[in-house]
Amino acid sequence: MTRSELISIIKKKKSFLCIGLDTDLSKIPSHLLNEDDPAFEFNKQIIDATHEYAVAFKPNLAFYECNGILGWQSLTKTIQYLKKFEVFTIADAKRGDIGNTSTQYAKAFFSPTQSGLDFDAVTVAPYMGEDSVKPFLEFKDKWIVLLALTSNKGAYDFQFTQAEEIPLFEKVLERSKSWGNEENMMFVVGATKAEMLTQVRKIVPDHFLLVPGVGAQGGSLLEVAKYGLSKDCGLLVNSSRNIIYASNSTDFAEKAKEEALKMQTEMAEILVSRGILC
Amino acid sequence: MTRSELISIIKKKKSFLCIGLDTDLSKIPSHLLNEDDPAFEFNKQIIDATHEYAVAFKPNLAFYECNGILGWQSLTKTIQYLKKFEVFTIADAKRGDIGNTSTQYAKAFFSPTQSGLDFDAVTVAPYMGEDSVKPFLEFKDKWIVLLALTSNKGAYDFQFTQAEEIPLFEKVLERSKSWGNEENMMFVVGATKAEMLTQVRKIVPDHFLLVPGVGAQGGSLLEVAKYGLSKDCGLLVNSSRNIIYASNSTDFAEKAKEEALKMQTEMAEILVSRGILC
Repeated sequence: MTRSELISIIKKKKSFLCIGLDTDLSKIPSHLLNEDDPAFEFNKQIIDATHEYAVAFKPNLAFYECNGILGWQSLTKTIQYLKKFEVFTIADAKRGDIGNTSTQYAKAFFSPTQSGLDFDAVTVAPYMGEDSVKPFLEFKDKWIVLLALTSNKGAYDFQFTQAEEIPLFEKVLERSKSWGNEENMMFVVGATKAEMLTQVRKIVPDHFLLVPGVGAQGGSLLEVAKYGLSKDCGLLVNSSRNIIYASNSTDFAEKAKEEALKMQTEMAEILVSRGILC
Repeated sequence: MTRSELISIIKKKKSFLCIGLDTDLSKIPSHLLNEDDPAFEFNKQIIDATHEYAVAFKPNLAFYECNGILGWQSLTKTIQYLKKFEVFTIADAKRGDIGNTSTQYAKAFFSPTQSGLDFDAVTVAPYMGEDSVKPFLEFKDKWIVLLALTSNKGAYDFQFTQAEEIPLFEKVLERSKSWGNEENMMFVVGATKAEMLTQVRKIVPDHFLLVPGVGAQGGSLLEVAKYGLSKDCGLLVNSSRNIIYASNSTDFAEKAKEEALKMQTEMAEILVSRGILC
């Protein structure tokens, strides 16, 4: 998907919501466990109920890999199902390795004829530097979402380290932004540190930012929008548990829809108030 | 596997060789492509031919994921096959995410009843800090191998950045070494920067180090041993392409065996000369 297509979807749906499919078999409603593929069945019902309000879906690879081959099957069916809808898809995989290996990871997520997976984007870790990231950028209309500032406590271990007079996460932004461009790179910036978005926007004014940590992790949508919105929106705000586990019963999809609608309504108001939508 | 079991295997086999199973269907001998599962058949023959000379095997996840469900099947069969031998197994996956997600990744590699995979160790990226690493340390007799200094060119982008007066990779070593101990943590230190091992050994004198980059990437075994060996050996030196792709023909396993034997012979001499073996 191109950047202009993504922006069109944001404007059409009046939303910049990304729903995280952190599908945990120990948390989904128990009646689904009798299905052939409970994780896929859960995802399908969540997607059906919420796709009008979400511009993106983000399966979290760990929750599929932990179930081995069966998990990989659920993931493959999920991405194939998502392709039916007008949504941007992100493999939250946090990959990154030497060049030759990163090329194989890129094929895993971007080459459906080989792997069965056809995501629009994959999250990538920056620690191994440019040649670990660039192979992902060689696929047309595919994106990487590079970790800059994450929403967890451990972010303080290294990401805020003063690295040549700026925090490491700023150095990651400064150095990596030239590896790709606004058409194929986004950055992860955690919502729990929303005020940091001001500094992030000085370095990458136009890049899309994927913002986790709103809701369950404590970040505020209004704060994120205040500091993070760009002229084209430029944000994808992720919510996982607050939406997909809004209920643990047979009404889970309906409750997920209510939560997604609530966020979309708030997002539409923000987009209008900032003049991004009329 | 415990540290003392690993050291016993090193002494018994007179080797600290790790063989990287970067199994690429476009590089394996063409006669194998008629097999039901070419990647597994290749691995099986490589393992059969080399396990006497290698103390560890390291499947590189990217090379399996790029083949989707089929790749995950090859990986599962490979790790199950490896369990028949006295070898340490490393999932070279470079994972790392917020705590809750890292727990799922740990189950993927360490919980055979759930995922089908039963590795001894997994490689982990440090960027997200302590809570992204610790969930992997909660599995008995399982290990993480944390990226410190990698063997690729991109290592210079961030790993050597002066971070509070020391290079970032040293800060990663300093800070992370207390998250676990010598019984459940190793570090990746690339062979292409062997002289750096002196500094690494000042920070982590007794931890095992996994050293990639010997051979195809240009690192020297003698240099690595000179600066990196500890009193218990403390090294696993990885070789992938030089061994597994020593021949592209029907004699590939035999040629791999020759290359592995060559390395094991050199390693035995080093271990004797350093007094680690009599």
